[in-house]
Amino acid sequence: MTRKELVELIYAKQSFLCVGLDTDIKKIPQHLLKEEDPIFAFNKAIIDATSQFCVAYKPNLAFYESNGVKGWIAFEKTINYLNEKHPHHFIIADAKRGDIGNTSAMYARTFFEEMNLDALTVAPYMGEDSVTPFLQYEGKWVILLALTSNKGSNDFQLTTDAEGERLFEKVLRKSQQWGNDQNMMYVVGATQGKMFKEIRKVAPKHFLLVPGIGAQGGSLEEVCKYGMTDDCGLIVNSSRAIIYADSTENFAKVAAQKAKEVQLQMASELAKKAAN
Amino acid sequence: MTRKELVELIYAKQSFLCVGLDTDIKKIPQHLLKEEDPIFAFNKAIIDATSQFCVAYKPNLAFYESNGVKGWIAFEKTINYLNEKHPHHFIIADAKRGDIGNTSAMYARTFFEEMNLDALTVAPYMGEDSVTPFLQYEGKWVILLALTSNKGSNDFQLTTDAEGERLFEKVLRKSQQWGNDQNMMYVVGATQGKMFKEIRKVAPKHFLLVPGIGAQGGSLEEVCKYGMTDDCGLIVNSSRAIIYADSTENFAKVAAQKAKEVQLQMASELAKKAAN
Repeated sequence: MTRKELVELIYAKQSFLCVGLDTDIKKIPQHLLKEEDPIFAFNKAIIDATSQFCVAYKPNLAFYESNGVKGWIAFEKTINYLNEKHPHHFIIADAKRGDIGNTSAMYARTFFEEMNLDALTVAPYMGEDSVTPFLQYEGKWVILLALTSNKGSNDFQLTTDAEGERLFEKVLRKSQQWGNDQNMMYVVGATQGKMFKEIRKVAPKHFLLVPGIGAQGGSLEEVCKYGMTDDCGLIVNSSRAIIYADSTENFAKVAAQKAKEVQLQMASELAKKAAN
Repeated sequence: MTRKELVELIYAKQSFLCVGLDTDIKKIPQHLLKEEDPIFAFNKAIIDATSQFCVAYKPNLAFYESNGVKGWIAFEKTINYLNEKHPHHFIIADAKRGDIGNTSAMYARTFFEEMNLDALTVAPYMGEDSVTPFLQYEGKWVILLALTSNKGSNDFQLTTDAEGERLFEKVLRKSQQWGNDQNMMYVVGATQGKMFKEIRKVAPKHFLLVPGIGAQGGSLEEVCKYGMTDDCGLIVNSSRAIIYADSTENFAKVAAQKAKEVQLQMASELAKKAAN
């Protein structure tokens, strides 16, 4: 999906919500456990219920890999289902990969060619040649970790170098030599609200993928205030607060309600921005 | 495997070689393609042929994941085979994972509990809570990326902070507050030969996992000169130079010869160190 298509989708749906498919067999409603593939059954129900309120889905691969082969089967079925039934959603594999060039090239082939995903999260520590293999695909995106939502983000990401630049700023700046705002986004945690101002100094136009609202405590209003661009420039993820909002047979209906609530807030944020 | 057991293994076998199982369906001998599971057939033959010359195996997950579900089946079969037939080898999943705490905890459960691996490579960018979930398992190891073998290692890892500390040094220093030399190792590329001296200033006793000899051009002699400790402190990986040394029906025999050559060099390096 190109940037133009993504922006059109956001304004058409009045939503920049990404539903995080962090599907944990221990947290899904009990009655699904009798299904042949409970994880896929859960995902399918969540997707069908929420699709009108969101523009993106983001399965976190850790949750699937933790179930080994079975988990990968559920992951592939989920991706195939999205490709077939909901082809107008932006699909992100939250994989946080990053390896030497030839290995990254293999990942790129898997995720972009074989699975037809739109984007992949990538860790920046190994530098340019671990990132560029993902940038060779038209309409596909690298989403590079910049400033994450967790406590450990303080350990290295905020380190200031001899020139006064923090590591996350260096990642933002340097990676713009490798890709551009048509094939690269950045992960910035919602828990870092006020830092969005700093982020926008270095990356004024790039789309940001923002995890951390909901269960992790970030504020949508603050993220929009400091992070929104003229063409939105944000994809905001919510996982647990939507998909695990209810654990009865009503789970999908409740997930839809929660997604709708967020979508309405988002519509209002888009209107606020347009009015400014 | 504890450090004591690993060191005993190294001296008993006079080897600190790790064979990297970077198995690529496009590079394995043609005649294996008629097997039901060519990747596992290749791994099994390589493992049986090289096991006496090495102390560790390191499958790189990217190579397996790039084949989707089939790849994961081959990966699990390989791990099961190692656990059953070669239980005295140190098994490393080269996964370069690293995510927020609850996600890392899921990875830890998969790799350490379910698959019974000895160690996992982890990327440090997300900091403490992305690493510590892996440190809760007796006899299991985190191998944290410090200074990698690729060109992109210059982009961020060598950045000097306001206190004159480089990022890889900060990773080495700070992570020693989370784990110790009994449950944590570091990845340092062999292509960074002279940097081993710098590494040893910050991490004098930790084991280092060293990729990059062979195809990537690093020198074993230099690595040992600057990096070896009194109890070895090194696991040196070779992948392509061993497993793809020959592409005929003789591939396993030739791989064994190549592994033996490296083992003999390693025995000589251990003797050199003991004589000093």
